[in-house]
This record gives sequence, structure tokens and C-alpha cells, in this order.
Amino acid sequence: MSHKSTLPPKTTDVMQALMQVALGAEPADLVVLNADLVNVYTGEIQQGMGVAVKGPWIARVSAEVKDTVGPTTRVIDAAGRTIVPGLIDGHTHLAWICTAAEFVPFAAAAGVTTVVTETLEPYPVAGLAGVLDFLDSFRGQPIRILATAPAMVSISAAAKGVSAGDLNLLMQREDILGLGESYWQSVLQEPETYLPSFQRAHQAGKLLEGHTAGASEKKLAAYVAAGVTSCHEPIDAEQVLARLRLGVHVMAREGSIRRDLEAISRIRSTGVDLRRLILASDGASPQDLMQGKYMDGVLRKAMACGFAPVEAVRMATLNVAEHFRLDGILGGIAPGRLADMVLLPDLAAFKPETVVCNGEVIFEDGRLLKAPRRHAFSTRSLNTVNLPRRLSPSDFAIRSQAAAAAARVRVIEMVTDLVTAERHLDLPVSNGELMADPANGLCKIAAVDRTHGHGKQFTGFIKGFGLTRGAAACSAAWDTSDIVVVGANDADMACAVNRLADLQGGAALSEGGCILAEIPMPIFGLASDLPVAALAARLEGLKQAMARLGVAFPDPLLSLNTLTGAAIPYLRICEEGLVNLKDGKTLGLFAP
Amino acid sequence: MSHKSTLPPKTTDVMQALMQVALGAEPADLVVLNADLVNVYTGEIQQGMGVAVKGPWIARVSAEVKDTVGPTTRVIDAAGRTIVPGLIDGHTHLAWICTAAEFVPFAAAAGVTTVVTETLEPYPVAGLAGVLDFLDSFRGQPIRILATAPAMVSISAAAKGVSAGDLNLLMQREDILGLGESYWQSVLQEPETYLPSFQRAHQAGKLLEGHTAGASEKKLAAYVAAGVTSCHEPIDAEQVLARLRLGVHVMAREGSIRRDLEAISRIRSTGVDLRRLILASDGASPQDLMQGKYMDGVLRKAMACGFAPVEAVRMATLNVAEHFRLDGILGGIAPGRLADMVLLPDLAAFKPETVVCNGEVIFEDGRLLKAPRRHAFSTRSLNTVNLPRRLSPSDFAIRSQAAAAAARVRVIEMVTDLVTAERHLDLPVSNGELMADPANGLCKIAAVDRTHGHGKQFTGFIKGFGLTRGAAACSAAWDTSDIVVVGANDADMACAVNRLADLQGGAALSEGGCILAEIPMPIFGLASDLPVAALAARLEGLKQAMARLGVAFPDPLLSLNTLTGAAIPYLRICEEGLVNLKDGKTLGLFAP
Repeated sequence: MSHKSTLPPKTTDVMQALMQVALGAEPADLVVLNADLVNVYTGEIQQGMGVAVKGPWIARVSAEVKDTVGPTTRVIDAAGRTIVPGLIDGHTHLAWICTAAEFVPFAAAAGVTTVVTETLEPYPVAGLAGVLDFLDSFRGQPIRILATAPAMVSISAAAKGVSAGDLNLLMQREDILGLGESYWQSVLQEPETYLPSFQRAHQAGKLLEGHTAGASEKKLAAYVAAGVTSCHEPIDAEQVLARLRLGVHVMAREGSIRRDLEAISRIRSTGVDLRRLILASDGASPQDLMQGKYMDGVLRKAMACGFAPVEAVRMATLNVAEHFRLDGILGGIAPGRLADMVLLPDLAAFKPETVVCNGEVIFEDGRLLKAPRRHAFSTRSLNTVNLPRRLSPSDFAIRSQAAAAAARVRVIEMVTDLVTAERHLDLPVSNGELMADPANGLCKIAAVDRTHGHGKQFTGFIKGFGLTRGAAACSAAWDTSDIVVVGANDADMACAVNRLADLQGGAALSEGGCILAEIPMPIFGLASDLPVAALAARLEGLKQAMARLGVAFPDPLLSLNTLTGAAIPYLRICEEGLVNLKDGKTLGLFAP
Repeated sequence: MSHKSTLPPKTTDVMQALMQVALGAEPADLVVLNADLVNVYTGEIQQGMGVAVKGPWIARVSAEVKDTVGPTTRVIDAAGRTIVPGLIDGHTHLAWICTAAEFVPFAAAAGVTTVVTETLEPYPVAGLAGVLDFLDSFRGQPIRILATAPAMVSISAAAKGVSAGDLNLLMQREDILGLGESYWQSVLQEPETYLPSFQRAHQAGKLLEGHTAGASEKKLAAYVAAGVTSCHEPIDAEQVLARLRLGVHVMAREGSIRRDLEAISRIRSTGVDLRRLILASDGASPQDLMQGKYMDGVLRKAMACGFAPVEAVRMATLNVAEHFRLDGILGGIAPGRLADMVLLPDLAAFKPETVVCNGEVIFEDGRLLKAPRRHAFSTRSLNTVNLPRRLSPSDFAIRSQAAAAAARVRVIEMVTDLVTAERHLDLPVSNGELMADPANGLCKIAAVDRTHGHGKQFTGFIKGFGLTRGAAACSAAWDTSDIVVVGANDADMACAVNRLADLQGGAALSEGGCILAEIPMPIFGLASDLPVAALAARLEGLKQAMARLGVAFPDPLLSLNTLTGAAIPYLRICEEGLVNLKDGKTLGLFAP
């Protein structure tokens, strides 16, 4: 089992070897000469510096390292180049859409040598075994991929929380840095559900990653008091300042979900200390990866927003490592740290020329030099869509309870592409049924449990999704074990969901009994093994097909998948019913 | 067993209670109102702030906390006061001279709520049981005392290193934060002796505290490459900068051993980031404690040296907590942190008025409100001077090997009060013996093992110690299990050492067969249970008595005890012989 993707141990032999190289008594494996070194510890740019590397470790950083060059030492003359520590993306979601093997080349090209990913997506659909398989897929990759354990805040009882046994096992792993994001509202609403996991993380000496979107004052204090030490949700400088003042490590999110860095960058005008400000992606879409908007792009954006280059570099290196208590081995170019380094022809332009991870040159002149490992996911991980039978249109019929001509129902209303409101509408009853009215913006929405074999489902209404014909379904419904489907008619809803069962997961768009577009995602029903470029094209195709059916959201799959999510206000759906996140209570379709 | 002196666990019940207080649903135990709060995270001073405390923890920090005041809540109106986090002394030596019970009132009065002490002194003379007894003496104290495990760099084989079993046991304790200081020269000279302990600390996920006095470039890199992450030895800004650049947490030492802060403060002119600069005492003498020179004095000095008040506070709070990876619970005033706070009428004057530790007011208006606990040390800890028989003057006789009229010997020459040189002198042989010549500054020096029962000893010569008559002995000889004695004649050397056997440790000054001054130190032969004031007077008396015998050093006991030390250059003595730290080799008396 390769150590390359995790944290190599510092044994006596390793220390001896490092000391010998540092002393000039033994040659280094790799030496960088003549670099302008961004010293993240002091904030200086030191000119004419060298770095001597032995195995995966840095042995000496000094203006004088030529004495460590031996006959087989690889020498990189970095004259005219700036060298910075390998970037760390401290919060992302690698279970979504593409595999680590396909993601890694883009990360390496961006200068990213360490990623910390959530594991909350595989857990509800594939359990501990799924998470372990997911973690296994990171081993032997050219870059280091670390993770957090699933906190599993969910609106669905079937997906809520993580078992003590599973969490204790995960907390023993060195590649699990803490408990992943837990949405603050739910923690405050159901402390008895989530605090036991907090306690297990505390006991294991691990971190609690936070999610404080919209929290302030008393509620923010209550959540932070439980020991949460990070948040990637603030959207402006004021929210950042409120969290920095509480000692929270704040991750300025600049990724495919949201781009908050520009608004957050106004924090600079306050003059406060920014040692706890971090740059993170929270996930990068295939399209964004293709367009160079990953962490190298984030660094460029940070500098464009006025952060000094050294400060920007720190926000993606030392500050992240300090948050994760890994600064003894990551986040800076110094003796005893892992040799993760990025050579840049121009610091401000931030276009990585050479990337070193664990002492190996993994990227050079636009080419990945070390092949990613294609992981063979287990049969179980590849078969996660488990419906008891094929669905028929009648499975999405909604019968009125009463004999009246109209019924008052709760409707999910799209307020933005992500935020929803709870709206109560009086719908006509036709032959004892309530119908979608796509011409007036009213579709049906259903959440179908795809995991537990019983196919439990709940069907309701959604307004403002835009679909005028057909149906769109996806098996990557956030925070649940569900397929989520929105449709203009019951038949296309059944068609789309049945197609996902055939594909063992993915996204499908149906109309008139035909599949107009689809993306197979057989890995946990969450990810494809297609290359990033192909996925970007498929996603774009799906988006255009959905647009033709009336959906105008910038990322229609995101809009669809978040409808089951437990973090974005307000009215959400799962296989048990509707849930208004204001109080977290499960609601029926019919309003009083 | 009280948790007050260590780290209380954050259980679900604790988190629930904190959240209820933060939300204003339950009253706080203690509330501070209207304070100017030094926010170490942002660097701001926030005016009109309140802090709500529940048990030992902070629940809410906000301008608005009055809603947490209940009928039994203690309220402190801090109008006109500044509140800062409790100070942390990140490197000190509590085994020397006074007990924790006597030290703690001075620490509390200085605003210190956390101390990290070495344990290297009890280990060679009382073993693991002694270290555990020492650690037990910290329990139930009004302030929090944490520790590092002994690294045991020593010039004596009997005291060198720490056993795997002992170290593994210590590393499992949460109050042991890492491996204590290891002197770099010895680590580089004998890596096979010391690196196994490094590896054990790494495996346990603990820190390696460093000691890099005089190291630079390659040697400094070699030591840091092994994973050492702190150093308290730099004496000027240039040395500090060299270490900060390597990512080392640098402790600016301002204590009774040395006062380096003023020279180090010139680092400010470089403009480098100081997040890794820390203030530490490295030990405070009873005299300094009496004179207010502990951490409150260090803070005043830092501000006098030009550090902005907030920066100075950070150097003794957040920066220290971050180094020890305890910033999730210590080092700042924020929700979820332990309620350690200091109220100051005037930040710049830094005279603590009220000190809160673990949520309890422990010091107020010049009075300690919570009594320190007097620890009942074990019989073993109180009986550590174990000589096989009473010594006689002839035990200190030095016989010449040859029949010649003179013999060339290695002599310890005092260069400063602490630094020595190896000097070779031709001494006359009289009746086959080599004699001290106090009139010409030449005394005898002996190191006598007091621990292992065999009384193994080595006697040599020392020049420049100043003693013209009598002998001075002490059982707190650094880094060894020895009594060290310097004498103008053999009879007084025997007299002084025998007195230490009677006292079971301490310091004794003899002349003409009489004891002129003495300080009993029965606790490990290292510490007295006298109050600090009494000890300061006794030390002053001993110093004056030694001055009358010709010793002019500022701290003559320190000069005596360090003669066996493994860190201060160059020629040292232990029961096995002389050792020149340049190469660490044990030498005989007779020079070639």
C-alpha cells in the first residue's frame, strides 16, 4: 500500500537520512536552485534560495544547497522562477461527478498538492464500506487527498447521523482530519442527534468542520461553543469578520457552488489579522476545471482582489495547514516538511510550471508526469440504486384526501436557483387527484429512496423550476439516500427514474417516454468515470437540453440535487415528506 | 481526581449546556460586562464587550450578554477595564527550587493561567515514578499546568535518554504535550540515542520542543528536519529570523536564566510576520517572582521594547496555543474556549486586577481566591540522595598517574558565569597528589552520583569559579543524577556533600567543617517546600555567603548546577569524567 497519498511516517531512519542531507554528508534526491522563495512563515520573498529534498521530505532550505547535489541528484534550476508551497484545497467534495483519477491531473496542474474532501455523499447510499472504498480511491494518487468523516446532517431519518461504530473507526484513520461539515441549524435543532458525533471527534483529538451560513450572534456563538473551528459559508466581509472574531478559521469559498472571494476580499480594508482566512473551492465542476478556475485561478482572483501575493499564497498553504494542525509537515517550504512545491515563472500570473508533491515532480511544462491510479471500485459501490420494482406513472399520482374541489398544499417555490420558500396553494382536485400545471410553472417533485430497497417515496409540488415538459431526475440528491425527480407529468417522471435504475445512478432527462439526455454515474450513483472534458461536455449538453424544456438555472443539476439538501433554506423534500429548515420538522403535503 | 488543572472534556452535556447559555436560554455562571476585549484572532480591541461563562467554558462573547445573567450569575462589571486571554508560559522548569503550590500564587497574580513545564529534572533522579509524582503535584491547582516528557540529553550515560516504555506511557497522557527540549548538538552527535524518542513523539502526534542555541545553517536545518518545531534559545533578532524562516515557533526568553527580549525585539524592524514568536520565561527564580518579573513583567517589557500591546498579548496567548495545537480551547476569548481571562485597569501597565481560570475567579484585587493544593510527595520522591557511605576528604584526593613532578590536566575554566572552556594546565605533583590552589583561582570540582547507590564520582579541577575557601555543593546538578561540588579543599567538599545526604538534597556551603549556609530541597533533591519569599531570602543569603568566600557570579547556584549540563559550552563534568560538548566525548582528567 502506497504512502504517497497520505502522510509518510517520520521514522528514525527517515530522520537520519534527512539530517545527513541537511548536513551535506549525503546527496539529496532533488535539489532546487536559485529560486525566489515565498516564505509563508515570515511573509518574505527570499531571493536566490535552494531546497534540498530527500525522499518525500525537505532536508534543507538555504541560499547554499549545492553541496547536496550528488551524481544522481535531480537538479532544477529555478533562476527567474518563484517557488511557493504546494496549494491546499481545505474543503471540497470529490464524490461528486468525477473520480479522483480524473480530477487529480487538473489539481496538479493548478499547483494543488493536498486536498481535503468531504465523504458525506457516499455514506448514506453505500455506508461505511462505501466511504472506505472512496478513501481507498485516493491511495497512490500523485497528490495527497485527505478527508473528513461524514457528519450526515439530513432532513431524512434514513440518512441522518453517523453510527458510533462507523465514526469511531473513521476517527482512528490518519487521513481523516475531523468531522465534516455539520449544518448549524440542524445541530441547534437536534443536538441530541449530532452532538454525540461532535463528542467522538473531540475525544479523538480531531477537528469539527463547520457550516454557519446565515448564523449570527447567539446562534453563531452556540454553534462555535460546541467546538466548531471552521466555516466556508460566509459570503461577505462582515460575515467573515464576525467569524474571525470568534476564532473560527474562515474559508473564503471560490468554486463552482458559489464565488464569494470578491465580496470577502473587502475584509482587507478592516486591517484585521488574516492568519485564519483560507481559500477553498467547496467543489470544482468539470466545466470550471476545464476553464482553469480551480485553485490556481482562485489565487489569481485573490491577487486581483487586492491580496498581496504572499498573503494570497498563505491563504492556500500555511493558513490551511495551521487550521488542520498539519503545519508541522505541510503548508510551507522548510526542513522536515513534505516536499510539496510549485514553481511559477511569474508569481502574480500564477501559472504553475513545475509541481512537486512528496518530493516527486508530478507536473512539468503542462504535462502530468505521474499517472493517476484508476481505482477499481467494489461491486457494492457500483450498485447503489436499489428500487423494489420499476416505477409507473401512477406512483407519482397525488390523491386528494377530501372530496372538496380544491386542496391547500405546501409547494416548494424556487426563490433563486438554490433558495426555496414554503408557499401554500389551493389546487383544483380533478377526479380525486391533484395535477401538475406546467403551463403555470407548477411541476411535481418526488424523492425516492434508492438505497434501502423499499423504494419509499414522497411526491409533492414545486413552482418556478421552469420545466414545461418532460422530467429531470438525478441520483445525487444532497444529504439523503434518494433520487430526486422534477416533472411536468407523471409518465416522464417514472421514465427518468427508471432510467437511473438501469444506469445504476446518474442524471436523466426524459420527455414523452424518451431519454433526451443522460449522464451515467455508476460510482455510488454520484460519479462517472468519464474524463473531465467529456463530463463537461455532457453536463453542458444536459443543461442545454433542460433549457429547451424551460429550465433556466445556471447549474440545473445543482438546483435539482439541492432540493433534498439540509443546508439551503427553506422548504426541502425527502422520501418522508417536506421539511422546512426553519424548524426542521417533517411536513405533509396538505397545508392546514 | 480534579480536572481543573488539565483539560476538561467537551462532552455532549457540556456542549448542550454551553449552547443553552449562548442562546440565552439558560443563565451563565459568570458574566463579564462592558470590557475592552483584546481579540487575539483579529488583532482588534473591541470595546464594550461581554463574556458569558458556563462552568470552565466560554459560551458567548458579544456586546450583548446581559440576557445570560440569572439570579445566581456572578457579574463582573469591567467598565474601564481591558480583558485579555489568560497568559501562557510555554516553556518553564517547575521542578527547580519551589513547589507548584508556592509558585502558583505568583503565576496567578501575573495573569498566567497555563504553564508548560519540563520534567527533565526529576526523571534522572527519581525515574518515571518521580515524573508521575511531579505531574500529580499539578492536579487541583488554581491554574493549569501542562508538561513535556523528558528528552534527557545528558553527558552521563546514567542519565542519558528515556526508556521506550516510560516515554510511551507519558505520551499517552493528555497533559504531556510533547517531548521536552533536546539539545541539538547531542542529537546530531548521537542520533541513535535520541531519535527513537523523536519517533515516539511523532507517532503519538505530539510536539518536539527544541533547543538550538548557537546552531546555524546546515546544523540548524538538520535538527529542524527531524521535526523539532520550537526553540527558546535565540538571543538576538538575527537568530530569531533564521528560525522563523524555517517555520520554527520561536520563544523569546525573558526569565531568570537569560533575558533576551530586548535584543530580540529588534525583529520588529524587519517587518516579518510574528505569528510564530512567543514569550516564555524558561524559569523564574524566587527572587524574580518576588520582584514581579514573571510573565506580567515580561508583557510590560515587550511593550516597552516597542511591541504593540495586542501583539505582545498574542505572543503570550494565541501564538503559544497555536504552537501547542491547543488554540481550539486556549489562547483566546471566544465561545468554546476555556474561560481563562485577565482583567487589566490599564493594558499598557499590565497589572492584573482580576484573573479567571477555568471559569473561576482565582485572583482579585491582589489576593489569590483559590488555595493552591499542597501535594504530598511520595516517600520515594522525598528520598533521592542515595550515597553508599559518608564521604571523607580522601574521596576527593587526585593521585597522579606518573612519578613526574608535574602532570598535565584538563581544567574547566569559567569564561563567563555559565560558559566554560577546556584548558590544559601543568600542575605540580605533591606526594603523588594534585592539589587545589585556591589562592590562584584553582579549585577542585567533583560530580557524585546520588541516585544509583554506588556513589560513583569523578573529581577534577575548575579555574575561575572564585572560591577561595570552603566548598559549595548542590544536588540539582543539571541533566544528571549527580551532586556537584566545588571546593577549595577536600575536607570541606566532603562536609558539604555529606550535609546534602543528611538533608536529602539541597544546597550547602561549608567552611572549616562547618555549614555556613544551606537550603534544604528534599523534593527530588531539587526543590524546597518553603514559600517563595523564604526561598528568595535563603538564596540571597547563600549568594552573599558564597560571595564572602570569593564567588562573584550573579547566580552562583546556577553557575554551579550548570557545570554538569549538556547544553552550555564547553567543558562539563559528570560522575564519569569530563566532557567537551564540541564532540560529546567523555575525557579523563589527564591531558595528553
